[in-house]
Amino acid sequence: MKEGDGMNRAIGVIDSGVGGLTVAYELMRQLPNEQMIYVGDTLRCPYGPRPAHEVKQFTTEIVRFLLKKDIKMIVIACNTATAFALEDLKKELDIPILGVIQPGARAAIKSTINNKIGVIGTEGTIYSQAYVKALKQINYELMVTTLACPSFVPMVEKGILEGKQAEKVVSQSLKQLKHIQSIDTLVLGCTHYPLLEKTIQRVIGSHIQIISSSEETAREASAILQEHHLLAQNTRKNEHCFYVTGNLQDFMKIYQTVFKENLEVLNGSTIGKVNL
Amino acid sequence: MKEGDGMNRAIGVIDSGVGGLTVAYELMRQLPNEQMIYVGDTLRCPYGPRPAHEVKQFTTEIVRFLLKKDIKMIVIACNTATAFALEDLKKELDIPILGVIQPGARAAIKSTINNKIGVIGTEGTIYSQAYVKALKQINYELMVTTLACPSFVPMVEKGILEGKQAEKVVSQSLKQLKHIQSIDTLVLGCTHYPLLEKTIQRVIGSHIQIISSSEETAREASAILQEHHLLAQNTRKNEHCFYVTGNLQDFMKIYQTVFKENLEVLNGSTIGKVNL
Repeated sequence: MKEGDGMNRAIGVIDSGVGGLTVAYELMRQLPNEQMIYVGDTLRCPYGPRPAHEVKQFTTEIVRFLLKKDIKMIVIACNTATAFALEDLKKELDIPILGVIQPGARAAIKSTINNKIGVIGTEGTIYSQAYVKALKQINYELMVTTLACPSFVPMVEKGILEGKQAEKVVSQSLKQLKHIQSIDTLVLGCTHYPLLEKTIQRVIGSHIQIISSSEETAREASAILQEHHLLAQNTRKNEHCFYVTGNLQDFMKIYQTVFKENLEVLNGSTIGKVNL
Repeated sequence: MKEGDGMNRAIGVIDSGVGGLTVAYELMRQLPNEQMIYVGDTLRCPYGPRPAHEVKQFTTEIVRFLLKKDIKMIVIACNTATAFALEDLKKELDIPILGVIQPGARAAIKSTINNKIGVIGTEGTIYSQAYVKALKQINYELMVTTLACPSFVPMVEKGILEGKQAEKVVSQSLKQLKHIQSIDTLVLGCTHYPLLEKTIQRVIGSHIQIISSSEETAREASAILQEHHLLAQNTRKNEHCFYVTGNLQDFMKIYQTVFKENLEVLNGSTIGKVNL
């Protein structure tokens, strides 16, 4: 692809379920001139507990679907899919592709003062060691401590984001994060977790800086688009497309549970079901 | 240049005077595996009040010097030089080149909630409208208000960073920033200003988020290096090179005045005088 061509084509966003909507939301907020084509694999989510080869296969299927839509860039808005599929896809594609792990790692490196960073995520993401690798590739002297929090995603999808129950679950999980007393930065290494940010902050205390991969990924997408001369030049409001592989009503229901205050995201967008 | 080649070559850093050391410091902190070759044009600083063609010429001279050192990337660690020279240099060079304006703009866009952003900088930077263009290119609906603060750089170079005198100068200048009551984000659009950050924050109040282009540029340099497969693979501590065009003793004196607490930056580095 010649750089600078097709800057007004859409950005493809890959999500395993609905967590990646936090990334899509930030992309729309930070890059309002861009058009988004989002695919949520709600039929087969969550990816977190699945084996690597399955996550790779599912992600590749969504990439193929998006490539037919003539997109200019892909954002993998799921930590598990990033951990298992990003490196191979980078080699195969001739358009830029960005995951959520490296932007989060970079923001944590900017934020930390004592070089002690915690990362929480799904089992898949944590056991893949993708964050540890991304962080240590840039600074091998960092102390990185990680924890899988499998109870967070089901809770978020039930819409339990704050209150006593949420605090109890978060507090019990984070007790197991080694060296939690000494870290100064905690990366939310799952796209669902920004929805629990207030509760997590309350549990860990205000002295620990929380990094949301979702916000950081949107910001880095902006930098990568600019580097490739692909920032949209049109200033009209774009119509986004949201596709899901599962039941549409279920998606809308979870969406409304999770994004109570941000319903305007879907306004003026096309929403449809897709078979991959 | 073939991507992935020469990842262990140095990053060239261009500074008009000593302000860019705030960027060099962040590059060393956030990218400790990288080697830096810094050039500070202390003989001809400040660039702020100079005409565009002169700033372009001086910057190009430093670029030529750095290219002979076989660098892999250039960071223009000066807002004025970025405003006047970046676009042309981008077209001419076959290695990545990054200025301080776009990273700061992008961080401001991530930070703002009410889409009202203030930018302060030198006369050159502010009158060039470079920040307004960078911000509006990404989101044309932003309200951007700017102010040149020509009294800040001389004050910083005298080592006056905090206290009554600093507060008086900052307060008198910022009074002239239109809509200061409504902005929620203020970009420090000059590499000297992060040294005044505490004073500026005290004057404007804690409700306004301050964005330091220096920190953000180091972070974006990391993303661009990774995108081009140019992140250093070695994990040894690198020896940096600092070149200045003016008097070496003067540089060390200003350096020590300004970086009281960060003297270790220069430890183990080569420091020399250069004629461009």
